[in-house]
Amino acid sequence: MVFWMMSGGFCRGSAVLCRLSSVFRSGSAGSVRFGSGCQERVCRPLLSGTVDRFGGVTVRDFPPDISEDEFAELLSVSLRQWRSERRVAVWLHVPLALSRVCSGAARHGFFFHHARGDRAVLSLWVGPGDDRLPAFATHQVGVAGAVVDESNGKVLVVQDRNKTTNAWKFPGGLSDLGENIGETAVREVFEETGIRSEFRSLLSVRQQHDHPGAFGMSDMYLICRLSPLSYDIDFCTQECVRCEWLDLRALADTSETTPITSRVAKLLLYGLGSGFHNIDLAMETLPAVYSGSFYQLYHRRLPETSQ
Amino acid sequence: MVFWMMSGGFCRGSAVLCRLSSVFRSGSAGSVRFGSGCQERVCRPLLSGTVDRFGGVTVRDFPPDISEDEFAELLSVSLRQWRSERRVAVWLHVPLALSRVCSGAARHGFFFHHARGDRAVLSLWVGPGDDRLPAFATHQVGVAGAVVDESNGKVLVVQDRNKTTNAWKFPGGLSDLGENIGETAVREVFEETGIRSEFRSLLSVRQQHDHPGAFGMSDMYLICRLSPLSYDIDFCTQECVRCEWLDLRALADTSETTPITSRVAKLLLYGLGSGFHNIDLAMETLPAVYSGSFYQLYHRRLPETSQ
Repeated sequence: MVFWMMSGGFCRGSAVLCRLSSVFRSGSAGSVRFGSGCQERVCRPLLSGTVDRFGGVTVRDFPPDISEDEFAELLSVSLRQWRSERRVAVWLHVPLALSRVCSGAARHGFFFHHARGDRAVLSLWVGPGDDRLPAFATHQVGVAGAVVDESNGKVLVVQDRNKTTNAWKFPGGLSDLGENIGETAVREVFEETGIRSEFRSLLSVRQQHDHPGAFGMSDMYLICRLSPLSYDIDFCTQECVRCEWLDLRALADTSETTPITSRVAKLLLYGLGSGFHNIDLAMETLPAVYSGSFYQLYHRRLPETSQ
Repeated sequence: MVFWMMSGGFCRGSAVLCRLSSVFRSGSAGSVRFGSGCQERVCRPLLSGTVDRFGGVTVRDFPPDISEDEFAELLSVSLRQWRSERRVAVWLHVPLALSRVCSGAARHGFFFHHARGDRAVLSLWVGPGDDRLPAFATHQVGVAGAVVDESNGKVLVVQDRNKTTNAWKFPGGLSDLGENIGETAVREVFEETGIRSEFRSLLSVRQQHDHPGAFGMSDMYLICRLSPLSYDIDFCTQECVRCEWLDLRALADTSETTPITSRVAKLLLYGLGSGFHNIDLAMETLPAVYSGSFYQLYHRRLPETSQ
């Protein structure tokens, strides 16, 4: 959708897009003359956007057949208008099929803020001082499940196929978007080992930057304690070369594992002997104040007297 | 960079790009004939890429003046070749200034995997079965710091300017890319309140999906325990309307706060009385097995005897 700004204000026409693009095709972009409806008045096309409470403009509608050069010109005129209105930022939500307009926006200093699926979002700070725009997601979240059989002190471990060293580790993988930590642990354990389990607690959090395979982003890796609901291993040969119920003491002592797995094995041994309440972060679901949805909170369990 | 594939194999020419684009401009894209050097042999232009250990092809070089239609044709021929070589995935790393090629790639089923700054990455699964490509980062990470003055049982709290309700909360904000959890807490506390502090422990982890302001992604919000290094408040009036050293008991009892702040206040009260080792997740830095770098691991501290 496009506005037509004239000396004295705006007028908005139906079929403005096709009129605009015919204007552009005629090569006289930026300044046109009309007959009836716009007699003898110079009109300039503008992108239209919605203004958020922070003073940012978001543009979601683009002339469907606009060229890279035409868009750069249209954006130039629009930016002048938005700056005169004291806007602080401009967001362009560009459909994949119209990606050519991103190159046009780049000429005015826009950069990719993020992109996903069939849409790219470009941003430009036009307010005073430094860019204060919030960044996009910086972390992938991986979750592993330590399935502990309390009846015999054994834990479920695997050795990955695509690793150079054969190190025992807990089965796990990346969270899908919108998936809770515990859900990822239970799903990944089942996909890799065939073992069904249920979430008990969060045990540890690891943060690693420049994580291999994270596309330059960081990695948050969480290990959960799970209880087994089944015991017969049927592991995925695509992902694993070995899968066993291993004695926790053996896992804590072996050098054939990763430092984090060794740490958590010692943690689990301690919990097995002295009570898991000594190592667990309990989960509770609480209401979010502003969105009205719910979130999961993990922390040390409080004694009844302190709640 | 472009290869020329002939019956019998490949030959690589200098000035291939300009030759390629002139070929395209002549409208006979996809099949050309040469005089010397390529006598009577049919040549087809191909995108060149590097092959990773998973069987994916990554393309980083594109003819600089290629059009949307020309790229769609070039990609079509290249995809046939890669499929015949049993490649499983194709990654296109497209410079912002060449964004028009993204529209051409979309015609062959490519989607945005992610984009950042001056580069968009598109992907297409061409292997057997379901798409097994790893997803991009799904979480933003926010960190708050609970600065506890153990000498008087007070904690540093603020009220945000841009909120509808005046709720006490711990100062905090989003982690910059590559920043450790504790570093974010100390930085945000100083920026919002003027108080200098040092990291002591991780207290809680919150996961929330469809988080407002996370661009459709999820939010991981961590609260750290910090010790004050200074005490005179000089708060940022752009971000906060109030900032105080508040008695922990008062924060635990007031309704003028968020559920998570209230929970953590109770945790801190319990820690203040019984020892913070009862609520802390201690941090240690460990070496990453494969990358050679280091990561931060947070979990319950183990008794000496269990280490």
